[in-house]
Order: sequence, then structure tokens, then C-alpha cells
Amino acid sequence: MEGSTAAKTVLRVAAISGSLRRGSANTGLIRAAAEICRESIPGLVIDHVDISSLPLLNTDLEVPGAGAFPAVVEAFRSKIRSADCFLFASPEYNYSISGPLKNALDWGSRPPNCWGDRAAAILSASGGSGGSRSQYHIRQVGVFLDLHFVNKPEAFIKAYEPPKKFDDDGNLVDPATKEQVRKVLLALQALALRLQLGKSAAESEV
Amino acid sequence: MEGSTAAKTVLRVAAISGSLRRGSANTGLIRAAAEICRESIPGLVIDHVDISSLPLLNTDLEVPGAGAFPAVVEAFRSKIRSADCFLFASPEYNYSISGPLKNALDWGSRPPNCWGDRAAAILSASGGSGGSRSQYHIRQVGVFLDLHFVNKPEAFIKAYEPPKKFDDDGNLVDPATKEQVRKVLLALQALALRLQLGKSAAESEV
Amino acid sequence: MEGSTAAKTVLRVAAISGSLRRGSANTGLIRAAAEICRESIPGLVIDHVDISSLPLLNTDLEVPGAGAFPAVVEAFRSKIRSADCFLFASPEYNYSISGPLKNALDWGSRPPNCWGDRAAAILSASGGSGGSRSQYHIRQVGVFLDLHFVNKPEAFIKAYEPPKKFDDDGNLVDPATKEQVRKVLLALQALALRLQLGKSAAESEV
Amino acid sequence: MEGSTAAKTVLRVAAISGSLRRGSANTGLIRAAAEICRESIPGLVIDHVDISSLPLLNTDLEVPGAGAFPAVVEAFRSKIRSADCFLFASPEYNYSISGPLKNALDWGSRPPNCWGDRAAAILSASGGSGGSRSQYHIRQVGVFLDLHFVNKPEAFIKAYEPPKKFDDDGNLVDPATKEQVRKVLLALQALALRLQLGKSAAESEV
Repeated sequence: MEGSTAAKTVLRVAAISGSLRRGSANTGLIRAAAEICRESIPGLVIDHVDISSLPLLNTDLEVPGAGAFPAVVEAFRSKIRSADCFLFASPEYNYSISGPLKNALDWGSRPPNCWGDRAAAILSASGGSGGSRSQYHIRQVGVFLDLHFVNKPEAFIKAYEPPKKFDDDGNLVDPATKEQVRKVLLALQALALRLQLGKSAAESEV
Repeated sequence: MEGSTAAKTVLRVAAISGSLRRGSANTGLIRAAAEICRESIPGLVIDHVDISSLPLLNTDLEVPGAGAFPAVVEAFRSKIRSADCFLFASPEYNYSISGPLKNALDWGSRPPNCWGDRAAAILSASGGSGGSRSQYHIRQVGVFLDLHFVNKPEAFIKAYEPPKKFDDDGNLVDPATKEQVRKVLLALQALALRLQLGKSAAESEV
Repeated sequence: MEGSTAAKTVLRVAAISGSLRRGSANTGLIRAAAEICRESIPGLVIDHVDISSLPLLNTDLEVPGAGAFPAVVEAFRSKIRSADCFLFASPEYNYSISGPLKNALDWGSRPPNCWGDRAAAILSASGGSGGSRSQYHIRQVGVFLDLHFVNKPEAFIKAYEPPKKFDDDGNLVDPATKEQVRKVLLALQALALRLQLGKSAAESEV
Repeated sequence: MEGSTAAKTVLRVAAISGSLRRGSANTGLIRAAAEICRESIPGLVIDHVDISSLPLLNTDLEVPGAGAFPAVVEAFRSKIRSADCFLFASPEYNYSISGPLKNALDWGSRPPNCWGDRAAAILSASGGSGGSRSQYHIRQVGVFLDLHFVNKPEAFIKAYEPPKKFDDDGNLVDPATKEQVRKVLLALQALALRLQLGKSAAESEV
């Protein structure tokens, strides 16, 4: 808020891909988002948070009383806790959230909830409807996690329809889709800032 | 923002009940909300918007080109457009939104959308799960309408479980439930203010 | 069941369009379904059930005790009760079921529920995802109504993408989409027969 | 069908708990279901299928072409494939399916889909609404998996409300809840038989 050129507030985005395979288009969307931010969105920085080594959620793995989690879980939770907002790249598995992504959402929610009261956006690369069904399930999960989602634009990327959108390594190569991702990122930045800056203003009002 | 005692910004809430029957507990929730605001929430004013005389949605009733709606629809849309935020009292009909409420949501969304970019909260009085299933459907509708919903607290009021919560005319008589409604209203006020005040601040940032 | 050529059991399908406008593509899907049944699906007969004159649901319109409904509601309920299975042509309004269709589903569910324990299929003509979001809401409603839905194939008809699928009066003109509708109807017939014929067989087993 | 006393068709139920912790009430529901079947439901046999050692879904773990899965996945898939119907004991994690259960559903769906065209029922032990939100997400997943779910009765077991329903090891100790589970199992048996016996009858009709 203290001024100068470019963005005044820098927001760090914890970005998670729901697909674990190497050539994943969804993971490719996160790489593309990171690049787009570096190149053309001052004030927004993508941190890719890997979820592949989280164990399946089992609360017996928590140390009761101490509130301690396995080291890999603790590291994950710490990244979530310190983020300003979130970006999910969510493949649609069987008309819902992928198992790995749901598992990560669940670990992050174990008390004390690490997700709360922050902005979030969703990208999906998928067949069929472009992943829309997974996104509405994430939004319902987000009610309990206390996330505030970007409503518009939504991004349902039909990964297997022409034009070719991803190369064999899952890199996003289609300019129109890059522009679509950029618009989601700008909306995420605007909502996250609005919620952050509005909070103190609202509290001094009431 | 210019100061003085009490609330500085007055927010007008368009409140809609999804049940049309005279003795409706959901309509009773809106009367209770109005009273609670008058008595103890400065800066929040409930306007009950009746939806019982809206026709079933049929776009043949619109005058093409002119963008004109039947008078009763136009009056409804005008109330939605001028509200600062929204309160839905949503009974659960067959695990979803009631027909009359869905019909009202749809009329308000006809281009140009009257609901956009404002805060909303949901109360439900119902049997079973207290109306929760209807609320998640409203939230999905709200993605397209561009509503920002209060996440916490949610209010699922089990209308038919003891203690007695409503009298025979649908008036809310249970103090604990009144307090529950009050907390939802405070959360709505806080979110609506946060979004309003944060908007200009965020725009001047980017 | 007593033999001869062609279909032995004739199933009557109550078919409902969720759109009330004259040129509706969804109503066109029902006309197309009726024609397809007449021409090439022996044993399946479509009855188009109009819902445009149902009042908005208000249980004050019911005569208490007598269980009596307004005449137009009673006529509607009678058609639902006597059908063997159901076909919904469901536009997507604001990511959910249209108000008129939800209203009809609700009137039919008033005790005693008229929908129970029968097969159903859904067609959607819509923009965006082809109506898929409305279909999953209908399916959730169907849990309470006790409907058994066809799972495969689903039909999400992208009404505004090429090739041209409907003429200006909402008539289905695209052969590939007609074939898609035909496959849904065959699946509906198969599921309805399976449930009908399996019921008595199962009861004699246990 | 060949006669004699007791059930003629024996149905094997693959039963999966979505919670991995030792004292899980949901796993307790499966133990209770197994006991109820042994004691009072001839023709229905519960096989508890453990999902705790499945890896997080990652299709890079599949051998391309060969269609081969890791041994633990292959063993799981084999149990799903050979079951007559399914029972899910589904805790609600963050208003949706638990990560471990979603992961198991996803592994079983990898082509060729192991779940297809069979009956399924859901039990939930959870706080709040008794797990209902997780159940509707499972039902949406089941559309793609091609499962036919029992509609009635549903079982939402409020694990933390009196009377005490589970002991400290997660064993179901409440007689009324046992009866509730028994009714779900009877409905599952009836639907599974109906679908099995109806299938051939329907095919010979059309």
C-alpha cells in the first residue's frame, strides 16, 4: 500500500495439481500459470505445492494431543497456511475431485484448518465437459474449508478437442488457452486483494 | 466511511422466502431477521421481497429487443438490482431448491443479470438435514449469478425437532435459533462490507 | 408378456420439458422422441405432459385432510401416477433445474408421491456443457422421489454449436442427435423393463 | 432359482470403508453389516475390502499396453470385479467423499471399469448431517461408474449424538442403528436381485 510502481501487494498462490502423472495437462496448467505470472502479472507469484508424497489420510498418523503430523504432512500444511490464496488444477475423475487432490484438501483441513478465509480459483483440463463436475464438488468442499472462489471466469479446458492445447509433456501450447488462464489469474488476484484490503476496512466500520 | 456513531454504511438486504404458504417457517425466518436487524444490527436493513406472483419463467413473456419484462417481473428485478446483498430462506423440496425460489432466481438472472457480484447468506428451516441439500444447490446456482456466499456460520434449522422453534403462524419463537439467525446476519454484513470496501481499494492497487 | 411378435410389454413414458417457450429445443427433443418411438421403438410410447399451467407450489392450495389438489395439479399428478417411466428434457437454467420443471417435480411429489420406483432418463439441450449441471441436480431430486435413472448413455446436447441441431421452431433436425436420443430411449426401455420384470422375480426369491 | 429353502441366489457384497483409522465407526458399520447378514439375511454375504494400501492414483504406475496395474491395485480390482453388489461406509470429509475412498473408486474405474452395472448402497457415520453430503457426491460418481443405488432407506448415522452408537473401538452397539443398517442391507439385496433377475427377462422381451 505504500506506493511506487507495479503491484504494491505481492500475493503468493499455493498451486496444486490433482493429477500425479508426469505428463499431466493439469500440472502443465500450473507451470503455465507460473510463467504467465512472471511475465505479465506483477504482484502474483505461483508456488507449486507437490502432493504426491502425502500418505492416504488416516488420523491414526497424527500424534494425539501434540497435534503433530507426519513430517511430509506438516510440510504441506505449512505451505498452505502461509499462502495468500490458492489455485487448483483439477482433473475430473469419475465426475468428481481426483483422489489425490481430495486427500490433500483433507490433510490441510485437519484442525487447525490451514485453508481458511482465502480466495481460490480452479482450472481444469479434462475430457467431456472440461472438468466442470469436479469444480462444483471442490466448491462444496470449499464451503467447509472457508474458501472464497472466483466465480467468473470459470475455465473448463477440453484437453482432447482441437486445437491441440498441450504437448506430450503436458505443456500448455495453445495461446487462446494461455489467455484464458491469464484471465482466471487476474480474477484471482482481484478477489484476493479485495478480500484482504476489505477485511480491515469492514472491521473498522462495524 | 465519514464517521459518527453507529454503522456508517447502511446495507439493504433483499430477503426471499422459497415457501409461499401463509404459515411458512422460512418466511417466519425472514420476519425474525428483519426484527433482529431493527433491534440489534445497526447498518443492516431487511426488505422482504415477495415472489408469489411471478409467472413461471417463459422467455416468450419478454418483449424481444426492448428487453421488457412483465410488470410484476420488472418490479421484482428492480428490487434485486437495488439491493446491497441477499438473504435466502430456503426450504428443501425434494433435496433441492423449491420451485418458486428457483423460478425467482431465474427471472432475476435474465440478461442483464440483476444479482451479480454481491454477498448472500442462506437460512433453511426444514425437516431431515435442516435443508442443507437445498443450500448447496443454491450455492451452485450462485456461481453463475456471481454471488459471494457466507461460508460460516451455516444455518440448518431442524424445524420439527424439539425444542419448538416456530409457532403455528411460522413465527420464530426459539431464542437459541434467533441467536443463530443473528450470527448469520452479522456474517452477511461483514462479508458484504468487506466486498464493497475492498473493491475500490483493490482496483487502486492493480 | 403373453407373446407374439414385436414388443410384448408396452411402456408409457410421461415426458416433460422444463422449458415453456414455444420454440424450445427441449420441447423439440420430446417431439423427436415421440416420433422416434413411433417409427422405430416398438413397446415405448411417449406422452408429452404439459406443465405450463401448474401454479407455483403452495401447499395452502391443497385441501387439508381431503388430500385434494387444484384440478390442474390433480390432472398432472394423475398422468405421472399412471406412467411406466419418465423422460425429462431439461434445459439448464443458472447451473440447475429450470424453475418450471422443479415446480412440476415438487407438485408430483406431494404425498402420496406419484413418481416412485420407476425408471427415468434425461435429455438436455443447452449451451455451455450441454445441460449437465441440471441433470445431476435432477438425479439428486430423484433420490427422494425414488427414481432409477439411466446411467449410460447420457445426452448433453450442445444446442448452439455446429452442426445446426434445431430449426427455428425447436424441431430437432440433426440426424446424429436423433440417433443419440434413440439410444437414450432404448436404454430407458431396457431399464424400465428390467426393473418391472425383475421386481416380481426378486420378490419370489427372498 | 432352482428352489429349496432359504435364499436361492447368494449375493456377495464388496464392502468398503472410507476411513482408515483403527477405531473408525464407518469400518464398524461394515463389521456390523457382516454380522447382521450372517445372523439374519440369508443370501447376502459381506466381504470387507481393505483400501488402505492402495497407492495414490497415478496412471504412470500402470504398464501401458499390458493394462497391468501394481499388484495391490490388481488384487483390489479383482475383488471389485467379482462382487455382485457394493456397500460403501462413507465418512464425510469436508462435505464430500474421503480421499481414501475416492482414490479406491478411481482405481476401480480405470479401464476396463470394474464397477459397472451393479447395485450399491451407502451407509455413513459422521457428525453434522450424518454424512449426507458425501453420499450425494458418491451418487454422482456412480453415474459414471454405472452403479444403481438404493434410494430408500438412506442411512445418515449421527455418530456423536446420543444415544451412544459406537464403542471406543468403533463397534456398533446401538440396536436401533443396527436395525437401520439391516433395512439398508435388505433394500440392497432386493435391488441387486431385481437388477440381476430382470436383466435376462428384459433382454428376451425386446
